Amino acid sequence: MNNVTEALLTLADTQRQYEVFSGANTHTPYLADSQQKYQRKVFATLDDLLSCCELRDGMTVSFHHAFREGDKVINYVMAKLAEKGLKGLTLASSSLMTCNSPLVEHIKNGVIRKIYTSGMRGELADAISHGLMEEPVQIHSHGGRVNLIEKGEINIDIAFLAVSCCDEYGNASGSGGKSRCGSLGYAMVDAKYAKKVVLLTESIEPFPYMPASIIQDQVDYIVRIDSVGDPAKISVGAARVTSNPRELMIARSAADVIEHSGYFRNGFSLQTGSGAASTACTRFLETRMRKKNIVASFALGGITGSIVDLHEKGLITRLLDTQSFDGAAGDSLAKNPNHIEISTSVYANPAAKAACCDRVDIVILSALEIDTAFNVNVLTGSDGVMRGASGGHCDVAAAANLTIVVAPLIRSRIPTVVRRVTTRVTPGESIDVLVTDHGIAVNPARPEVKERLVAAGLAVIDIEALYQKSLVISGEPKPIEFTSRIVGVVRYRDGSVIDVVRQVKQ
Amino acid sequence: MNNVTEALLTLADTQRQYEVFSGANTHTPYLADSQQKYQRKVFATLDDLLSCCELRDGMTVSFHHAFREGDKVINYVMAKLAEKGLKGLTLASSSLMTCNSPLVEHIKNGVIRKIYTSGMRGELADAISHGLMEEPVQIHSHGGRVNLIEKGEINIDIAFLAVSCCDEYGNASGSGGKSRCGSLGYAMVDAKYAKKVVLLTESIEPFPYMPASIIQDQVDYIVRIDSVGDPAKISVGAARVTSNPRELMIARSAADVIEHSGYFRNGFSLQTGSGAASTACTRFLETRMRKKNIVASFALGGITGSIVDLHEKGLITRLLDTQSFDGAAGDSLAKNPNHIEISTSVYANPAAKAACCDRVDIVILSALEIDTAFNVNVLTGSDGVMRGASGGHCDVAAAANLTIVVAPLIRSRIPTVVRRVTTRVTPGESIDVLVTDHGIAVNPARPEVKERLVAAGLAVIDIEALYQKSLVISGEPKPIEFTSRIVGVVRYRDGSVIDVVRQVKQ
Repeated sequence: MNNVTEALLTLADTQRQYEVFSGANTHTPYLADSQQKYQRKVFATLDDLLSCCELRDGMTVSFHHAFREGDKVINYVMAKLAEKGLKGLTLASSSLMTCNSPLVEHIKNGVIRKIYTSGMRGELADAISHGLMEEPVQIHSHGGRVNLIEKGEINIDIAFLAVSCCDEYGNASGSGGKSRCGSLGYAMVDAKYAKKVVLLTESIEPFPYMPASIIQDQVDYIVRIDSVGDPAKISVGAARVTSNPRELMIARSAADVIEHSGYFRNGFSLQTGSGAASTACTRFLETRMRKKNIVASFALGGITGSIVDLHEKGLITRLLDTQSFDGAAGDSLAKNPNHIEISTSVYANPAAKAACCDRVDIVILSALEIDTAFNVNVLTGSDGVMRGASGGHCDVAAAANLTIVVAPLIRSRIPTVVRRVTTRVTPGESIDVLVTDHGIAVNPARPEVKERLVAAGLAVIDIEALYQKSLVISGEPKPIEFTSRIVGVVRYRDGSVIDVVRQVKQ
Repeated sequence: MNNVTEALLTLADTQRQYEVFSGANTHTPYLADSQQKYQRKVFATLDDLLSCCELRDGMTVSFHHAFREGDKVINYVMAKLAEKGLKGLTLASSSLMTCNSPLVEHIKNGVIRKIYTSGMRGELADAISHGLMEEPVQIHSHGGRVNLIEKGEINIDIAFLAVSCCDEYGNASGSGGKSRCGSLGYAMVDAKYAKKVVLLTESIEPFPYMPASIIQDQVDYIVRIDSVGDPAKISVGAARVTSNPRELMIARSAADVIEHSGYFRNGFSLQTGSGAASTACTRFLETRMRKKNIVASFALGGITGSIVDLHEKGLITRLLDTQSFDGAAGDSLAKNPNHIEISTSVYANPAAKAACCDRVDIVILSALEIDTAFNVNVLTGSDGVMRGASGGHCDVAAAANLTIVVAPLIRSRIPTVVRRVTTRVTPGESIDVLVTDHGIAVNPARPEVKERLVAAGLAVIDIEALYQKSLVISGEPKPIEFTSRIVGVVRYRDGSVIDVVRQVKQ
């Protein structure tokens, strides 16, 4: 044992500045206090917790939307922050839903100044589309959001993350406890990048609650609340299951396209988006897979009960889950070892060292509009009002070997196939096939795919002809009247601006 | 769809600078090339791979030591870097072993200028202890290493990580494939913080190789080599299993201390270090646990076959594994869902938002020397030559509720209990009980523990009396002769310097 202070003086200048040891717990004083040692992260109420956060006007707060329409945390926390008198906040939620209409008041009152989100619906979307906010909303894809976070444009001060359970140190899961949202794929990103991470949990389980989705070394504070979300409402809206005959017919037709696309082979990989026809397509794949002795290597993305069903039947080897679209998916994540939770970075971040979407053979996506150049709009309705979300649409479309869009030709007398989409979210170059109830159109850039579908006797039709059909049925739609004011900026997955959304006239 | 360039001009200045979309794959050109899309990380040889790295003199390269004496990657890569003519490198391996003696040549030739490691043994340690290096070696604990990395003192340019298998995107494991080291707890840290991450793997498995220990978004390059390590040599040396009667006697005595310490209750948690008596103690716990109906909540740290045995018998609920000390531990990690891999940050980083070692009730550690103030030396031998490692010693000692050191009073005629340790690695304030083959000494700071052990009839003895016993048996050891030159700087877990190691005289 040496006298360290004296010893360091004999070292080269660069090494003299080392601190000299001054006690086992100089830098970990909480180890000497048994209450602090075990419970220093846990607060009795959100108010207590917030009084320990450095709250300030203009800060960025983030949330995940895994509970979709059942979320109870976003509105709750934003109301609390409003109560504290905060102003000018940037709200960076991975997405926003119809249930988030209370945010309208916080925008009016100046609590929220700026929003980053994958999309929005309902009253909030309506108000913003009609000019509620001074700054346009930034619409990003799921992969693109991670990119914006990594580049620092979204610089999260505090992430408020809803989890069904965690332990006192913050090891947390969405697939244990009572209100399970399943995968915490979005939250995993915020937990990694936010300056401070707050867990709102329904139950605090004994340490160690592992394996966990969010790990203790990412978590600063924890508070227990009565309910973080209603899992029954995850599959409401965009993630619903359909029994609509037209949607089922389109889904079956999409399964035909998959079968004959040239990509339907043993070990193929797939993703189905959140649209009803898209998720329904899964159901028609089973017989086709059995007939040809095909087992898929993995299914990616938003995982549904019908995908889980194929997994449990041995037809899909692994499920890579960044968002569980229903209770069956959440249950499966908790029990099936090859149902694996992945962050949205690993899922689809174009700036990541590798994204799983790059390995997808076939993806089935939905559309609110698709134009004759195959550009897709999943954000604005035919009235120009925002009522959808970018989601993983442009991420997987860009990466998959075969991107199929499923959509009815006409929806409630409104054409889906149009000359020019109201809002471009995914560029036409990323779309290979459009499946409608009036025929299948193939992007001219993929002549080999067209050949295969024609050879299989499928109803292939030119997209221009589909457009003309829609005109015959529903007539030329009246152009939407917009003001010149920009209410939304649509960011492509790489951060570039692919379109803007303008304020609709009253 | 709007003209984006024009539209952006109408926005506020701060938002005009957004890039305008210019193609789906402008920022992901590899998506347009099927070879690049799938295999851009994989190189045929390490030479090919290195030609893609920005190699430069003075850079920092890192490794993990999970294969311990069986490692084949550290020497292999360092020889390659020497071949490339690199000079002045900082080598930051989580530890170094007897097998690393080839590094002596690289130090002599100026390839390696500086070393960060938990410890060293054999020829390398001998040469450095005798003054081989100009700059002193920095000795850190496992948790302290992460702290030094996070603070930027260890700034890893390239991490070269041995894994038994991974897929083309870099999802990697140490518990699948042929040469399994088990937990990749050390490697997980380097994968997170290194600027570039290289995997050296024995096999490339089909994508997605998940769940994985190292995830694709952390990995830059991959190369397959014939052998990354020999798992049979993991349990050679410090991690060996003992049948030495004296070690077994000490182990049994340590189990008695645990039983009567006041911390032996249902739900308790434990860690056993890598020493033979320490790991052997596990075997004596089983009957004591059954007798009192006690199940441990978790075992932490280096996991051994005997810990796995208790887990599989239902006596320890969870295993938190940062390093698998033998093949049985590696096998268990692959198959037991409650045998969980954790990074060394989650294990013991004092600057982490939470470290698992803070939840440990009882830890059993070894010592080369312990002095009458309970300071422990696990680094230098009685000849002053380095022959050990800091490991997690000071990390868990500081954090656990009861820290027990097990050691024979005399080793090969050399006393273990001394007046003053040659090198202080763990401060005496962190040590609660010393168990020797000549009695049990309790730190005066823990009178309540002493009372309990005395009440249980255990052979409690003053540490001064133990020291006097050792003098009687082996005589006063001759002081080691050191020069004034510092060859090693011992960093406490918080980064401060707790001692230095001086060059031994020939």
